[in-house]
Amino acid sequence: MVVHKAFIEKAKLDELILSRLMPGEDLFAGLNKMARDHGIERGIILSAIGGLKDVVFVNVRHHAVIPVKTEDMIEIEEAGPFELLSLEGNFFPSLEDGAPVIHLHAILGTSSGSVSGGHLLKATVFTTAEIILGSIVGSSVYKAKSDVTRRMELLKK
Amino acid sequence: MVVHKAFIEKAKLDELILSRLMPGEDLFAGLNKMARDHGIERGIILSAIGGLKDVVFVNVRHHAVIPVKTEDMIEIEEAGPFELLSLEGNFFPSLEDGAPVIHLHAILGTSSGSVSGGHLLKATVFTTAEIILGSIVGSSVYKAKSDVTRRMELLKK
Amino acid sequence: MVVHKAFIEKAKLDELILSRLMPGEDLFAGLNKMARDHGIERGIILSAIGGLKDVVFVNVRHHAVIPVKTEDMIEIEEAGPFELLSLEGNFFPSLEDGAPVIHLHAILGTSSGSVSGGHLLKATVFTTAEIILGSIVGSSVYKAKSDVTRRMELLKK
Repeated sequence: MVVHKAFIEKAKLDELILSRLMPGEDLFAGLNKMARDHGIERGIILSAIGGLKDVVFVNVRHHAVIPVKTEDMIEIEEAGPFELLSLEGNFFPSLEDGAPVIHLHAILGTSSGSVSGGHLLKATVFTTAEIILGSIVGSSVYKAKSDVTRRMELLKK
Repeated sequence: MVVHKAFIEKAKLDELILSRLMPGEDLFAGLNKMARDHGIERGIILSAIGGLKDVVFVNVRHHAVIPVKTEDMIEIEEAGPFELLSLEGNFFPSLEDGAPVIHLHAILGTSSGSVSGGHLLKATVFTTAEIILGSIVGSSVYKAKSDVTRRMELLKK
Repeated sequence: MVVHKAFIEKAKLDELILSRLMPGEDLFAGLNKMARDHGIERGIILSAIGGLKDVVFVNVRHHAVIPVKTEDMIEIEEAGPFELLSLEGNFFPSLEDGAPVIHLHAILGTSSGSVSGGHLLKATVFTTAEIILGSIVGSSVYKAKSDVTRRMELLKK
């Protein structure tokens, strides 16, 4: 098993990838396409704005401790639609097979002004999603599964 | 009428524009000034922190469907003041007249730790707004009105 | 005393600093280390994702006016753990002694999907914190204490 360690690495921002997704598109498929079509291996979301619906989050329960148990990860399903207020995330290649692993956290707004959010598992574009990715070059960071969180986390080779 | 389509475009980040807005300044006027004074046609908000008051949001109602009806867009007015927790957005020239069109989503915090947010129509700086814009070069993306959302959305020429 | 004024400054994004913090690490110590180890004087958080616990916020009270009184700044302590949904912030050298001053606003998610957030005073990494800083070059912006907000704010020399 891979042992995760803290690291600090210097890299460079290279190209920006701009995209506009259409109503009904799957958000994760759209992000994968942005990266794949331009051969981007590593990147971050620099800007995202639009609307989402049919959203699934999985968030950690209050008072959970590490290693996080499966029953401490709570799935939430919300139909929306919502304003997409914030989308944070990165994608790095899997240490195992090099496939891009996307980690996304979203914050959504409702018509009352109330807000919900979490670790995003699934989402569909409502009206539009205007996304700008920044590609990272000069990095040797990968993602590998952590036995502590059961998620794919950053690892420097 | 313009037909909106999905697109993916490669571009470059050019300069950063740093600004500190003062108490009482209009946020949109401040952002426009940042772009105009330095001749920035296209850009994104890379970082924003500070405080806002007298905020107006307009958010989509739960269970709305596209095309979004006017009565499904709900305006919310909040006096605050609030911590400015997140400001996502981009500006691109209008396809019609080239004037910059700013699209902003904000997330605000209160003294109880509760959070509200939405598509920003108006806001005044409370104490400070420290904003860093990134200018985009090599892009041929514009904004044009969508008949689906009644908002200005990204369009690649 | 220093008089704060609005400014607009052009600068450049230089290097990215990528880091993965470990469970139990102090978030502010981790960010300081990222900047110090690579000699970064000025920067912004471009991307952050992970989980936090033992969080302390201080937020402005509704209906507060400037100059903000001490009793209008409310401290909130939350044990969590939480999903780290958004981390906005910048660091610039203190005008007084050149030491880096970090200003952070965080938004956190719970297992119900509810969200809290504010001006961050303290936080501990729960499972991981994956942070990408962007360093800024060509800037002569500092931080100095404002008598209006009692916080360190941006100031152009």
